[in-house]
Amino acid sequence: MRPSGRAPDQMRALQFEPGFTRHAEGSCLVSFGDTRVLVTASVEEKVPPFLRGKGQGWVTAEYGMLPRATHTRGNREAAKGKQSGRTQEIQRLIGRSLRAVVDLRKLGERQIVVDCDVIQADGGTRTAAISGAWVALRIAVDKLLAGGQLSEDPIRTQVAAVSCGFHDGQAVLDLDYDEDSQAGSDGNFVLTGDSAIVEAQLTAEGETFDEEGLLRLLRLARMGCTEIFREQLKAVGK
Amino acid sequence: MRPSGRAPDQMRALQFEPGFTRHAEGSCLVSFGDTRVLVTASVEEKVPPFLRGKGQGWVTAEYGMLPRATHTRGNREAAKGKQSGRTQEIQRLIGRSLRAVVDLRKLGERQIVVDCDVIQADGGTRTAAISGAWVALRIAVDKLLAGGQLSEDPIRTQVAAVSCGFHDGQAVLDLDYDEDSQAGSDGNFVLTGDSAIVEAQLTAEGETFDEEGLLRLLRLARMGCTEIFREQLKAVGK
Amino acid sequence: MRPSGRAPDQMRALQFEPGFTRHAEGSCLVSFGDTRVLVTASVEEKVPPFLRGKGQGWVTAEYGMLPRATHTRGNREAAKGKQSGRTQEIQRLIGRSLRAVVDLRKLGERQIVVDCDVIQADGGTRTAAISGAWVALRIAVDKLLAGGQLSEDPIRTQVAAVSCGFHDGQAVLDLDYDEDSQAGSDGNFVLTGDSAIVEAQLTAEGETFDEEGLLRLLRLARMGCTEIFREQLKAVGK
Amino acid sequence: MRPSGRAPDQMRALQFEPGFTRHAEGSCLVSFGDTRVLVTASVEEKVPPFLRGKGQGWVTAEYGMLPRATHTRGNREAAKGKQSGRTQEIQRLIGRSLRAVVDLRKLGERQIVVDCDVIQADGGTRTAAISGAWVALRIAVDKLLAGGQLSEDPIRTQVAAVSCGFHDGQAVLDLDYDEDSQAGSDGNFVLTGDSAIVEAQLTAEGETFDEEGLLRLLRLARMGCTEIFREQLKAVGK
Amino acid sequence: MRPSGRAPDQMRALQFEPGFTRHAEGSCLVSFGDTRVLVTASVEEKVPPFLRGKGQGWVTAEYGMLPRATHTRGNREAAKGKQSGRTQEIQRLIGRSLRAVVDLRKLGERQIVVDCDVIQADGGTRTAAISGAWVALRIAVDKLLAGGQLSEDPIRTQVAAVSCGFHDGQAVLDLDYDEDSQAGSDGNFVLTGDSAIVEAQLTAEGETFDEEGLLRLLRLARMGCTEIFREQLKAVGK
Amino acid sequence: MRPSGRAPDQMRALQFEPGFTRHAEGSCLVSFGDTRVLVTASVEEKVPPFLRGKGQGWVTAEYGMLPRATHTRGNREAAKGKQSGRTQEIQRLIGRSLRAVVDLRKLGERQIVVDCDVIQADGGTRTAAISGAWVALRIAVDKLLAGGQLSEDPIRTQVAAVSCGFHDGQAVLDLDYDEDSQAGSDGNFVLTGDSAIVEAQLTAEGETFDEEGLLRLLRLARMGCTEIFREQLKAVGK
Repeated sequence: MRPSGRAPDQMRALQFEPGFTRHAEGSCLVSFGDTRVLVTASVEEKVPPFLRGKGQGWVTAEYGMLPRATHTRGNREAAKGKQSGRTQEIQRLIGRSLRAVVDLRKLGERQIVVDCDVIQADGGTRTAAISGAWVALRIAVDKLLAGGQLSEDPIRTQVAAVSCGFHDGQAVLDLDYDEDSQAGSDGNFVLTGDSAIVEAQLTAEGETFDEEGLLRLLRLARMGCTEIFREQLKAVGK
Repeated sequence: MRPSGRAPDQMRALQFEPGFTRHAEGSCLVSFGDTRVLVTASVEEKVPPFLRGKGQGWVTAEYGMLPRATHTRGNREAAKGKQSGRTQEIQRLIGRSLRAVVDLRKLGERQIVVDCDVIQADGGTRTAAISGAWVALRIAVDKLLAGGQLSEDPIRTQVAAVSCGFHDGQAVLDLDYDEDSQAGSDGNFVLTGDSAIVEAQLTAEGETFDEEGLLRLLRLARMGCTEIFREQLKAVGK
Repeated sequence: MRPSGRAPDQMRALQFEPGFTRHAEGSCLVSFGDTRVLVTASVEEKVPPFLRGKGQGWVTAEYGMLPRATHTRGNREAAKGKQSGRTQEIQRLIGRSLRAVVDLRKLGERQIVVDCDVIQADGGTRTAAISGAWVALRIAVDKLLAGGQLSEDPIRTQVAAVSCGFHDGQAVLDLDYDEDSQAGSDGNFVLTGDSAIVEAQLTAEGETFDEEGLLRLLRLARMGCTEIFREQLKAVGK
Repeated sequence: MRPSGRAPDQMRALQFEPGFTRHAEGSCLVSFGDTRVLVTASVEEKVPPFLRGKGQGWVTAEYGMLPRATHTRGNREAAKGKQSGRTQEIQRLIGRSLRAVVDLRKLGERQIVVDCDVIQADGGTRTAAISGAWVALRIAVDKLLAGGQLSEDPIRTQVAAVSCGFHDGQAVLDLDYDEDSQAGSDGNFVLTGDSAIVEAQLTAEGETFDEEGLLRLLRLARMGCTEIFREQLKAVGK
Repeated sequence: MRPSGRAPDQMRALQFEPGFTRHAEGSCLVSFGDTRVLVTASVEEKVPPFLRGKGQGWVTAEYGMLPRATHTRGNREAAKGKQSGRTQEIQRLIGRSLRAVVDLRKLGERQIVVDCDVIQADGGTRTAAISGAWVALRIAVDKLLAGGQLSEDPIRTQVAAVSCGFHDGQAVLDLDYDEDSQAGSDGNFVLTGDSAIVEAQLTAEGETFDEEGLLRLLRLARMGCTEIFREQLKAVGK
Repeated sequence: MRPSGRAPDQMRALQFEPGFTRHAEGSCLVSFGDTRVLVTASVEEKVPPFLRGKGQGWVTAEYGMLPRATHTRGNREAAKGKQSGRTQEIQRLIGRSLRAVVDLRKLGERQIVVDCDVIQADGGTRTAAISGAWVALRIAVDKLLAGGQLSEDPIRTQVAAVSCGFHDGQAVLDLDYDEDSQAGSDGNFVLTGDSAIVEAQLTAEGETFDEEGLLRLLRLARMGCTEIFREQLKAVGK
């Protein structure tokens, strides 16, 4: 029995609330159980310096956590004056994951900045962020298509992410904080709507992996992402 | 007619959602119309260095704004590596306002850190933050009283804040972003439940004030705060 | 009897020494009793990025305190690597106060940066700074007018500031450090030469305010500023 | 044919020069072809604050790159005043990889800081760093064992890392800079001497992965690490 | 003829105004012509961490320049968030120069922090700062001796500094800004009251030095310092 | 007898390994005994902002020390977020020393950035850095001449540096770390190939200098630099 009482291949309750805030071109409050992340997609009619004049766009992400999103209060990164290594690692991962399903040439010379801010944390904040980010991005791009700024859809397919790990030797899906703390080893998988892997990150803590274990986790991840893909589509009304 | 269509002495729709997040000892999502601020109160069993061994507690506040809380995206302060002067000014004001109604001796040697994070901004974020902060603080202190960590209530009375200003020569209450941008002069008042002023900040932009104007604004502020006090009490079930 | 032995409505000895340093277009060493602030106004033939090409100028201020301006040595902000919230709050106030009496269109596309550095502190450094800043600004603008860079005077009127507060229930003017430490509540008023209020900031510490108290402080502030206005004019030879 | 002319499963020339610098308790200059990383292991008789009094030690890593280690000069991180997200991501990976093979309880209350500084970069700096770090760590721990500060060996097994990726649809081992730039997708594997996976990070750029591809890369990684393990042992004289 | 019209071996007008500010244990406004530096010496009853429990004291210095001390306004270091290399170089030099004439054992476990802030700059700010620093230090130490905190005088002798350089092939003393800008090569000498050299820094710009030139500059420096020593003694009433 | 057992006028073993890294236009690993500094010269086809359009080039230097280059590990400057005063002082000295022998007009509108990174420290890192920097610069400039980007050689002569100091009253050359720690006073001299002094920095610690001592050190420095000049020429094949 896993700590959460869920079946090994059972996701937490998934919820995508599109349009949670009104200023952003796209927004979504995503919940993976008690993990809640507010995602906004902001369209900017300029690209970063390294892309100027190259005839293509850019998609990038920033990640943050409210100081009391967690069990005990963490220091505010703005007050400390720098983003932690963990924060930077996560926001780089979110950005790469989104770019994997976007044709940057079709986006034109504009940038979409996706902000993922964790309102409440209970494990899997980065996977919830990636999954919600696709919804916010989809909404923002739909607005550009509807407004005629884009004529062709630059988003090739969906992208979603989920964590998996071993708990007491059993492969389990979508770990919450308690399960994550006790997991011998775990990983995050980012998959596309056409079933391809775009990112996989596995870390052994205590226990190590072998091929067999890796494939079992990947199989679980596919199951989880299938469910996420379905909810994403509902959220964007497709 | 004011831009929002409201009567001069009419507040925006007020909403306090207590317990919006689950980890913090006290939390509240406060809405003044489209302005929405998530406030958490975190109890820490230690005091800052300058108070160690002095037999009293401390209440302090931090303020932040999600990058796309506003009409156009602002830079993330954590990424820039510093908090703006505006941010620091506001969080100092929130902290002073709360301390004005707390008996720090009765709090014991513990600190309550109140985080106010703006989810969506439409004018008056600091006044919404102060008003919501009292609710989060009240909930956190009630938990300390219920748990026996405190025997006497350190909160003397309520505290709330509201903005007022002159729009086309008319004194109006609780300015939204559009009204604030057009106001000739405006101010923020922080009042206590027993009707005293704890902070008043007035700034003339374009038009200047005289005593008469100042008193008219103050009268409006009293009306607004009376309404806020009522909603605060409902939110904390009193 | 107030601690300083002064009458309740008595300012400290005021002194404005124009031209205290020779490189700045305008400069002034202002003393409010033992509080001494060196102010320089520097004319720059460019405006900040957000104003480029808008056909108007800008006036801004920076504030600093020498490490041993105070009773005990404070850390040097340049060594700590950041300006405190208090410093930023004060320099924003000085800038707004000056801009309240300047027609930025008449200034042309140039910026005047006013630096206020506290040489010695004994309470009221921000009010002395604002009062001295007007003198330095006036001198710099006179130089622009004399040199033909400006044809019309962009300064509409004078601006001055003074603090007031309650000491043992009595409203007193221009608090020194000792009085400020013991004041139940106090505030800073920024007034223009034509008697209008441009900024008012009141903070209750211990005692709170009511309308009556607020008006008594404002009345004192008017008396103090009248005296400051007179000395400012003498300093600039008008 | 891969750009480097190597066979798909061929590593670059490997070289470990133990004792490259004389002050560190352990040091090693590791070369994976033209990629050269200087690694030092420094023993400190204290642990970080979060471990004080817990009866265990710590192993951590820092990573840096000399400004002209690369084809075009990069800015010096010390001059910019912060470490990039990439730097932090890599040094966290190195630290986790080393801790995966160390029994921190047996290390006692001391810390070993492993510094990995890239002298020359040609792809695979993080995998060379991890592989060299084990050698420096082994030397430092041997010194502690010889000196009697440790009675039991805290290092459980070897650890090594290598990159693999797809080039023109072919799975290739140990990518150099040119190959890495052209790879459709690639990854880094960190394996232990007893053949377990401790870290796996895969990123698709352009092409995506499937299980089959993932397993092919893993198989190559095993081959590469076997060779690295052999050279590590030679370097430490075992 | 040198630009300033002075004789080659002529110092600018020297002035030491002791007690310029009232809070510091020692203070002095020193003028070398138009170069004016405010120096304060602050006594702290503690030593930096590296000296704790070693039975000796410490003397250290910090240096700053008001933004408009110079011909054109420089950025405020506190606003930029860091001290320039030049600032750090100068404050390290001032600290070493003072420590060269102080017996740190006799000072006891206390620190004297000397702040040198340039009010107006016209060349030679570091030499004026060192020369004025001795006066402020002397006054602060005299206060400790008079108050009985010290029983023996820790100051062994005077210390002063002056610049010299070559202008059109002629060795000249105490360069002002114009002369410094045109000098082919110049240097700063720090000498003690008993005629010994404690610091010498020479830099060739355009022209280089030889032994002969070096000795000519040193001879001028001795003449200049003799005059400074005399004025220092007058300033401290000895 | 000096601690190192060397004769008073004996340099440590000198070694210049040109071309130590392959990406930089010029590079050199310089050893003064156990002090080893890796120097690279990077050619950039642009100049810093203050020189744009002035028809001249620039040579600048940066200095760093690997954390465990020293006996005990120092903090990584990139992790601390700032360069120490010592680092900045040294890199400014290296830059000035190189510029003293380069005709910046002949360099054209390009910049050469010289990075000096200390791999292992045993005293005299700045003098080794300057001496090695000339070699790296020479190689980079030779490449520009050979490639036709430059038609005239902008390097006027060689430049080298060495330290000297008094140990037990005896003047000794090229101090190692132990000797430097015990030296009563010491200095660094930067000399050109035509025997002129471009920089001299002398600091008395404990003992002071007189003219006689200064000249003895200078004489030693000439002897040391003569040997360095010879080795530099060998290294660049001239």
